[in-house]
Amino acid sequence: MRFLHTADWHIGKRLQGFSLQEDQQVAFDQLVALAHQEQVDAIVMAGDVYDRALANEETVAQVNQMLTTLNRKSGLPVLMISGNHDSAVRLSTGRQWFAATDFYLNTQLQEAFTPVVLGDTQFFLLPYFEPLAARQYFEDDGIKTVQQALPKIVAAMQARFDPAKRHVLVAHFFAAGASRSESETLVSVGGLDAVPVDALAAFDYVALGHLHNRNALHAPNVQYSGALLQYAVSEVGQEKGVYLVDTADMTRRFIALPPKRPLVHLTDSFANLMAAEGISEAVRQTYVAVTLTDTQVIPNVMSQLRSVFPLIINLNRAQPLEVKTLAQASVTKQAPMSVLAQFYAGITQTEMSDSQREWAEAALTQLEQGDQS
Amino acid sequence: MRFLHTADWHIGKRLQGFSLQEDQQVAFDQLVALAHQEQVDAIVMAGDVYDRALANEETVAQVNQMLTTLNRKSGLPVLMISGNHDSAVRLSTGRQWFAATDFYLNTQLQEAFTPVVLGDTQFFLLPYFEPLAARQYFEDDGIKTVQQALPKIVAAMQARFDPAKRHVLVAHFFAAGASRSESETLVSVGGLDAVPVDALAAFDYVALGHLHNRNALHAPNVQYSGALLQYAVSEVGQEKGVYLVDTADMTRRFIALPPKRPLVHLTDSFANLMAAEGISEAVRQTYVAVTLTDTQVIPNVMSQLRSVFPLIINLNRAQPLEVKTLAQASVTKQAPMSVLAQFYAGITQTEMSDSQREWAEAALTQLEQGDQS
Repeated sequence: MRFLHTADWHIGKRLQGFSLQEDQQVAFDQLVALAHQEQVDAIVMAGDVYDRALANEETVAQVNQMLTTLNRKSGLPVLMISGNHDSAVRLSTGRQWFAATDFYLNTQLQEAFTPVVLGDTQFFLLPYFEPLAARQYFEDDGIKTVQQALPKIVAAMQARFDPAKRHVLVAHFFAAGASRSESETLVSVGGLDAVPVDALAAFDYVALGHLHNRNALHAPNVQYSGALLQYAVSEVGQEKGVYLVDTADMTRRFIALPPKRPLVHLTDSFANLMAAEGISEAVRQTYVAVTLTDTQVIPNVMSQLRSVFPLIINLNRAQPLEVKTLAQASVTKQAPMSVLAQFYAGITQTEMSDSQREWAEAALTQLEQGDQS
Repeated sequence: MRFLHTADWHIGKRLQGFSLQEDQQVAFDQLVALAHQEQVDAIVMAGDVYDRALANEETVAQVNQMLTTLNRKSGLPVLMISGNHDSAVRLSTGRQWFAATDFYLNTQLQEAFTPVVLGDTQFFLLPYFEPLAARQYFEDDGIKTVQQALPKIVAAMQARFDPAKRHVLVAHFFAAGASRSESETLVSVGGLDAVPVDALAAFDYVALGHLHNRNALHAPNVQYSGALLQYAVSEVGQEKGVYLVDTADMTRRFIALPPKRPLVHLTDSFANLMAAEGISEAVRQTYVAVTLTDTQVIPNVMSQLRSVFPLIINLNRAQPLEVKTLAQASVTKQAPMSVLAQFYAGITQTEMSDSQREWAEAALTQLEQGDQS
């Protein structure tokens, strides 16, 4: 059988205040089109459907529509788990009805040990879980971490293995390195201890969610799909998409899903950026993180950049600002706002934001009026 | 066919801070037991499943379990609409899967015109709706109220009537009086204009939710089921339960569901209540609203009553407090807290609450310490 492996949709996520609703819908629609084109037998979604445990109504409506499209309209089997960003309880609403149309959704640890069999493969759907849940399930007070729970979980799953089938684990945690290189793997990300990939050797394929970079891990049988979109400046340049997995020979192939508005990172001088020479209209209309090469203070820098890049989400400097010593002589010749802006920049190495500037200007106006009265 | 008509569960509701989770579960379990005992063919739930649009996880888990019990475990067809307390979007999660097991859930106006046929009956499930939704659906800017929308809604449903079937409407609005007696019906409750019962004449039975009193309306074919429990002091003495409707002869019968802890209203003197003579242990362990017949100020009255009635939810007075004029001579002989308590009671005609008393005592202590320093 062949399935698409996706994860970390984070529906409802905003980038610095900008709604990603449309971008996420476009990516999702591409995913559905790809599933049809490739005639896959199932969609595997490895957690973080939602960005927040408590999503707003608009986001709930979008997810409801997505799940309906995937499973009811497209008729595709869906294998899904909750991630650490999902509310297991809220996401689980309806799950008792979903399985009738081959939509398998697990949100609690104890549900993970009953495999779902599709074609030649047993799927074990292990949702994000807290160590406490494993401690209670195995009645073992020694379990303090996800890492400690995993061998027991894998053993319990292996006891259910049908040797005639392929064995796929769908999970949402931080996996890394190999268990023997302690210095490498004893890292904690997202509140989870890293699970060594060796602990997952029993499976033909482990479809992971949690890390947004599909290249976060290199292992023959363990793969992060990566997120649906670039969700942080640190993800600039990361291709996003899905893995197409074929259980006949256990091969996988990454298929990129080009975003409607990719996140780009521009490093240049303020003058060049404002002139926008050599900068395409596409870049001007997409999400932009800016690193300025200038070293001097630039008044109203965000407002000015926003006039050229309306979707700017981040601004920093390539090198520290040069802030002249504010000698008494020089200060008395300058407007108070200019002195304040230089002082702020000198101390914080960032420009004042628009609202900070507004507050400062209002305060200075008040001061001046007080002087006159 | 025979069905149970229930409404206004308000799962998640609290009575003055007391969780009703257990009381609601007991009432629900009785309802399920009754459905089995009477071998009904369906459960009709006429809105306000939840008490709030945004319920907490515990409440969502309880509702999920209730719906699963009703439809999946008991195998009963369920006909449900959203009420004004529900979030239509959140409640609708999973509805595309529910119908496969005869769980019909409508949360949007446009879904109401496709009848659900069970046995000899067509059910029209009309969720709570805003006039705007009707204005858009009928493309009629003249619709400003629910009352104005109803004739159009009923006509659209009648166009789908199978004359060989019974016709039952499930709805959640304020219905009252008759359309010809204007003085009686032009009342607004819960933000909804009253729908005259005449407008509902086309139906053999109208299963209503919204008003918590099953006797709020007397009409041959229109019935409020009443709420699952007594949810306010004004509902003391109201029997709560469900209607058992038989479509063979269109008769209905009320069946009471005795609550685990009914809400009782005690009117007596403080001394008698504290002595608790003739007051059963059951009353002492249930939700209690108290009306005191005393006319004098009673210090720490709520704390004292709570020691006898731990689930006290309300306190008022049968008659105004007698507050003696605080002549200077009398005031100087009394402790400051006593003067303050009398003054408060004289002005507000209620006793200070425990927390008000704490604040006042702290303030007086501060004052006294200030005097000494």
